[in-house]
Amino acid sequence: MGRIDECISKIAPVDAVSREAAQRRQGTLTKPQGSLGKLESTSVRLAGIYGTPKPSIGRMVVFTMAADHGVTREGVSAYPTDVTRQMVLNFAGGGAAINVLARHAGAEVRVVDMGVASEDVWPPCVILRKVAKGTDSILRGPAMTREQAKACLEVGIELAWQAVDEGFTALAIGDMGIGNTTPASAITSAITGRSVAEVTGRGTGIDDAGLRAKVSVIEKSLQLNHPDPSDGVDILAKVGGFEIGGMAGVVLGAASRKVPIFIDGFVSGSAALIAGVLCPRSTEYMIASHRSVEPGHAHALEHLGLVPLLDLGMRLGEGTGAVLAFEVADASCKVLSEMATFEGAGVSRASEGK
Amino acid sequence: MGRIDECISKIAPVDAVSREAAQRRQGTLTKPQGSLGKLESTSVRLAGIYGTPKPSIGRMVVFTMAADHGVTREGVSAYPTDVTRQMVLNFAGGGAAINVLARHAGAEVRVVDMGVASEDVWPPCVILRKVAKGTDSILRGPAMTREQAKACLEVGIELAWQAVDEGFTALAIGDMGIGNTTPASAITSAITGRSVAEVTGRGTGIDDAGLRAKVSVIEKSLQLNHPDPSDGVDILAKVGGFEIGGMAGVVLGAASRKVPIFIDGFVSGSAALIAGVLCPRSTEYMIASHRSVEPGHAHALEHLGLVPLLDLGMRLGEGTGAVLAFEVADASCKVLSEMATFEGAGVSRASEGK
Repeated sequence: MGRIDECISKIAPVDAVSREAAQRRQGTLTKPQGSLGKLESTSVRLAGIYGTPKPSIGRMVVFTMAADHGVTREGVSAYPTDVTRQMVLNFAGGGAAINVLARHAGAEVRVVDMGVASEDVWPPCVILRKVAKGTDSILRGPAMTREQAKACLEVGIELAWQAVDEGFTALAIGDMGIGNTTPASAITSAITGRSVAEVTGRGTGIDDAGLRAKVSVIEKSLQLNHPDPSDGVDILAKVGGFEIGGMAGVVLGAASRKVPIFIDGFVSGSAALIAGVLCPRSTEYMIASHRSVEPGHAHALEHLGLVPLLDLGMRLGEGTGAVLAFEVADASCKVLSEMATFEGAGVSRASEGK
Repeated sequence: MGRIDECISKIAPVDAVSREAAQRRQGTLTKPQGSLGKLESTSVRLAGIYGTPKPSIGRMVVFTMAADHGVTREGVSAYPTDVTRQMVLNFAGGGAAINVLARHAGAEVRVVDMGVASEDVWPPCVILRKVAKGTDSILRGPAMTREQAKACLEVGIELAWQAVDEGFTALAIGDMGIGNTTPASAITSAITGRSVAEVTGRGTGIDDAGLRAKVSVIEKSLQLNHPDPSDGVDILAKVGGFEIGGMAGVVLGAASRKVPIFIDGFVSGSAALIAGVLCPRSTEYMIASHRSVEPGHAHALEHLGLVPLLDLGMRLGEGTGAVLAFEVADASCKVLSEMATFEGAGVSRASEGK
């Protein structure tokens, strides 16, 4: 049995007993029922994931996975491809948005080269797991071989397991890859069944003509490669990306070890969709951090049955939304654990029927 | 000149030069323009408020102001009036949601008795500024005298000034008062011009019949008292509440000292509306923390020209949404101050027109 099958076989349902105990406890705390909205529902989900009625988030790590995309040759992005490499160096230097926001949240950033098209010798903090130097153009054929797709997933699983072994108890995924909203849109269309036009946006900022061309490239790529929507490895190989495969692996690895996995924006969401095809139960461990302005993201979250915590008009990736959501999730656990009960504080409850 | 006029005379426009410098700097940071959404716009507003292109939030305090409401005699709330008193003791004991979430955010909670209907001798941490033991029922006449309304505003101004003198650099308002969504709806209708039905919700959780009765009570109160929408003190006196007046005073006090004031939910929003009538420029210093599920809140924010940061389905008050927003605002400042620039990090910019 390969590592992927081994991992999937270990993904168990969340703990319904702890989840229900947390739900009951929320009803005893000194506030009107449901008045803390998503803080309440998130704490209840985390109780189920961690298997305890008083969960806490603990140590947090975000995997920011980078790779290049052959499809950028077709002119789908506003930025030159070399920016992927430049941004890996920016992550290593601590100057990118994810570095700033992770420091704010008290989370560690692990930068992973899953397939950057560069010969660079990275600074030591960059985790080198380069599957290849960028994918092939999905307009000309599959992005990668089936073996490469499996290799990406295995890297993600390995990194997630290692982090949990080190004591991290909340994992997040984020992406960096110029052009990667193109494969993300292709994946989202293939899995959700939505049209390409519905799930394709402006990425880093293309204009109207650029958007029309991008939709056309994705439509042709799907016609050429016809990925099998029931086969996660096939979708990843045909129209995916190395960082997307790595992130899907992290999702499966986190779920197999019963820790929550915070999904960032649209590209992370496409990785979550692939994980959901490979193991539908893995969605029980996913926390949707925020809703990206990329139009496909809302469709992906709906397909996964997830409600986003934040809606800040963000569309950056890197894991930036995920680390902001760490803090909200942490707050939700504290409410559940630390608030006084009506009985303990001597506070009267609501009258019946009013 | 009274303290209120003195305060209002000191409310100056925010610093356009710093705001524009912050806006320009956002454009130089290593991310696509606008890709951090509300984090970017919030940091730019804070630059204007603090008068520096690299603002930071610093020390945070939330004023949780409590009072009782004579209108509860008309059966507008699901909870017994005594819960206001009980919750003040819960705040003092550290067991309420605002205590937990303020600890999480690193903010101090200052609990103020603005007019609780109780003879209790409070624990020393409760700030005693009781204007009277609850308002009169707005269904029978004005909530309070014009002198009492001014006294509330003066208390809020004094507390805000004192906090700024102590070194707090970010202030928030939150409320506790059984029945207070009723005056908040009356105020919101009077100032925004929306119908009572549009701005009235279920508060802590009344049923359909209770909601119809609540709307009727508010409509009759407005007909009886006919507050002058151009006179903030008149609106407060006719259909307001002591904690609402105190919060409106904190808003004015914060604005006069050039620190941001974080508005919590619907009841806080009604206080912000009154502050906006008394001094329209005070809205420049307001940060809308979140959108409450109370339907009137969105109308109040629209009237104030504010976009809420969070939308977590909350409806608790106490300042709970405001302290969560402290963290997001803090993160927004760090992005502006700490991120690398394209030039500094050697990252290429987007190509023109793509």
